[in-house]
Amino acid sequence: MYRYDKAGQTSFALGTQATFYLLESAPRRAKRVYISPKQNRDETYARLRALCSETNVPVIENNERIFRDLSGKDNVMVIGEFEKNEEVLDPASNHVLLVQPSNAGNLGTILRSLVGFGLADIALITPCVDPFDPKVIRASMGAIFHLRLKRFSSFEDYAASAGSRSFYPFMLQATKFLPEAKASSPYTLIFGNEATGLPSPFLSIGEPLKIPQTPFIDSLNLDNAVAIALYEFQKEAIH
Amino acid sequence: MYRYDKAGQTSFALGTQATFYLLESAPRRAKRVYISPKQNRDETYARLRALCSETNVPVIENNERIFRDLSGKDNVMVIGEFEKNEEVLDPASNHVLLVQPSNAGNLGTILRSLVGFGLADIALITPCVDPFDPKVIRASMGAIFHLRLKRFSSFEDYAASAGSRSFYPFMLQATKFLPEAKASSPYTLIFGNEATGLPSPFLSIGEPLKIPQTPFIDSLNLDNAVAIALYEFQKEAIH
Repeated sequence: MYRYDKAGQTSFALGTQATFYLLESAPRRAKRVYISPKQNRDETYARLRALCSETNVPVIENNERIFRDLSGKDNVMVIGEFEKNEEVLDPASNHVLLVQPSNAGNLGTILRSLVGFGLADIALITPCVDPFDPKVIRASMGAIFHLRLKRFSSFEDYAASAGSRSFYPFMLQATKFLPEAKASSPYTLIFGNEATGLPSPFLSIGEPLKIPQTPFIDSLNLDNAVAIALYEFQKEAIH
Repeated sequence: MYRYDKAGQTSFALGTQATFYLLESAPRRAKRVYISPKQNRDETYARLRALCSETNVPVIENNERIFRDLSGKDNVMVIGEFEKNEEVLDPASNHVLLVQPSNAGNLGTILRSLVGFGLADIALITPCVDPFDPKVIRASMGAIFHLRLKRFSSFEDYAASAGSRSFYPFMLQATKFLPEAKASSPYTLIFGNEATGLPSPFLSIGEPLKIPQTPFIDSLNLDNAVAIALYEFQKEAIH
């Protein structure tokens, strides 16, 4: 029985698109590519075989079992197995820091937004959802292979390694609104857990910001809040 | 066996928060409130009973079965049954129009964002996900009870009833970027299906806009795109 092992060395990118991202963006992390016996021998298949050959990644085509075990209800034809590496973040670049995020789908969507808005570095404070869980990889649509990702046990640990930079914690208790922020790079946008937000000590770190919103909802979804913040900080840089 | 019936007259708000929203924002739509025998007789319980009494909504406390049947894996203690009404949209207000959205979680999150950014009207072009599906209500955290919602069979049907207004279709093929848009109210922000986006004829409707993004992702998540657009159009109005 194939199962994702949280303590293991490798994880799985389920689906053709995520596997292409793996091979194109992080070929050295790719261990092997499984192609379902049901996959049509079409143009996509040919491109995938060619890319595996270029990147020296072994292809396994006769393993129906891994598809039964790992793909659940989804119709998956290609699986990329990859090494779970964490990487040193770039101290000169802009970061997103998530404090104890707990939802795999949210984290995957956030990884995709980072890539969409031109960031390449994400830090997580533990305890948090396993960022290499196949559910995260799938929700990220492979965006994780474009990113440097690293876990830290505390904000202090993170800050000690992150170099001189501006911190922007996003908190409902902040008094300054996001549209009034003057972005100073390199920066880190900081967000709390889905249910609890950031603990109040973050009010004295950097420049806390809040996203304007009516009092009729408790808060925006975490992945929506991150997307809005990235949009506001990056809109001039990327268009 | 209790099951949500897509063709029926009523649906269910699962959870205490969503049921409070129902009773507070749309009491005339509430048919009855189920309280689990396992619910503690605490302060929340007392508030809920008082609110049902004020709004003349019957309370049923001995029906374990509906909780078993409807709440799935979640730990639900309160269920509000409500009438599935569509309402005429306000032709003087700002709207969001979703063309054939297919995902219940996305739609629920989008309803919450509308309320968070001060909009009260949403239109859907069919075929689309059932907006009264309990999964949508739950993802909206009850925000749906703050909104007027109406389905239309085509954009033309919608436009004929929407009054004089500005249309902003969000499309990757647009040439104007969101940050350059001059919002003219009342407006409608228009978004396509999660997988396919808006059909190209929308390029000649109103002022098509695109959200700046790198070429390394196909597109942002639908609910992230709606949240960013609402933020940009409403940030001055609500803070």
